[in-house]
Amino acid sequence: MVKRAVILLSGGLDSATVLAAARAEGYACYTMSFDYGQRHRSELDASQRISAALGAVEHKVIGIQLDGIGGSALTDSRLSVPDAQAHTQTIPVTYVPARNTVFLSLALGWAEVLKAYDIFIGVNDVDYSGYPDCRMEFIQAFEQVANLATREGVEGRKFRIQAPLQSLSKAAIIRLGTQLGVDYALTVSCYQADQQGRACGVCDSCQLRKQGFLNANINDPTRYF
Amino acid sequence: MVKRAVILLSGGLDSATVLAAARAEGYACYTMSFDYGQRHRSELDASQRISAALGAVEHKVIGIQLDGIGGSALTDSRLSVPDAQAHTQTIPVTYVPARNTVFLSLALGWAEVLKAYDIFIGVNDVDYSGYPDCRMEFIQAFEQVANLATREGVEGRKFRIQAPLQSLSKAAIIRLGTQLGVDYALTVSCYQADQQGRACGVCDSCQLRKQGFLNANINDPTRYF
Repeated sequence: MVKRAVILLSGGLDSATVLAAARAEGYACYTMSFDYGQRHRSELDASQRISAALGAVEHKVIGIQLDGIGGSALTDSRLSVPDAQAHTQTIPVTYVPARNTVFLSLALGWAEVLKAYDIFIGVNDVDYSGYPDCRMEFIQAFEQVANLATREGVEGRKFRIQAPLQSLSKAAIIRLGTQLGVDYALTVSCYQADQQGRACGVCDSCQLRKQGFLNANINDPTRYF
Repeated sequence: MVKRAVILLSGGLDSATVLAAARAEGYACYTMSFDYGQRHRSELDASQRISAALGAVEHKVIGIQLDGIGGSALTDSRLSVPDAQAHTQTIPVTYVPARNTVFLSLALGWAEVLKAYDIFIGVNDVDYSGYPDCRMEFIQAFEQVANLATREGVEGRKFRIQAPLQSLSKAAIIRLGTQLGVDYALTVSCYQADQQGRACGVCDSCQLRKQGFLNANINDPTRYF
């Protein structure tokens, strides 16, 4: 039987590259995205298009009312998304409390149902926004939880949380994805993209992306509004 | 400032007791329940009544489409809830994949927003249905994740996942709650309760509850259909 993997897909550049990498390793890929009260829905449309373009077996969108919790500029419309900031130790207002923990938990639930023992996530601690739940020590701790929380874990099979981009620069990620055939025109990175998926060009995420294409010396297909 | 706690509330006997215990310890209690596609909504009504009766500051219900994941008799209407089974090593069909991981993740998100550093959960590994995510080693692993995943954790404050019922028998839990003034008539334990919160009397959860009241020698207020 072909080995299965669940891939967390945000619609952005990193997770699209992760999907391409998992597929290149021979996994049957099940992609998962979340409708969590985020500011724009174009990232869900992007996830759907990326899943189709990169041959995912199934794309599932799970609704969660994270906006009921608040605490982030990405889920609370009363807070505004700031322009790119100097990268300091400060965790920015776009941090969504416990987001990757929630997303990995739901991926784990689906993985257990699918008997998929590999869960891929596009976290990266080089060119990132300083979120605590993008660090390798977090990923490793969650892997522990995954193996203690589940029927499959108790019965002796082992879940792995794979973060293949962990130590890559944004430019290296873009080079990798380009080699693997990712069409980055399908991806949306902007924290405040419009309905058509066009980007603002000034938020932290846009700046990281723009600089990545420049550094990789690869043509940037991003559309701006 | 009064210390705050987030209490996971299922509407059942255990979590109502946990809420009473947290309140007795002086916490300002924020209760959290989930609308996750479970078979009956009476447990959400019960959570609301219990929160009011035991003086919670706020009761939040978060929607999650766990039924989109399936894999459990509690969220998939095509699977039926079995009668109580002999307690073996087997994990029953009522196990919901990664449920407590998902619930604790969302509680963590809210706790971070509230600056509540204690999260209470009513898991118990004595009289329980054999779910892997009710064991102490799971709770401890999740506490690790909580402290690595969050802004608060990174900044040096410490989240604690408190499971005060962990090693109590069902009878001991009922005695504790009775001392603390819990009205168990408000709680619903049955896996297939009706709209009015009346219980089947034959599922695993009903059997554990019934035996608990018998062993505690306390009058059982459960209503059966």
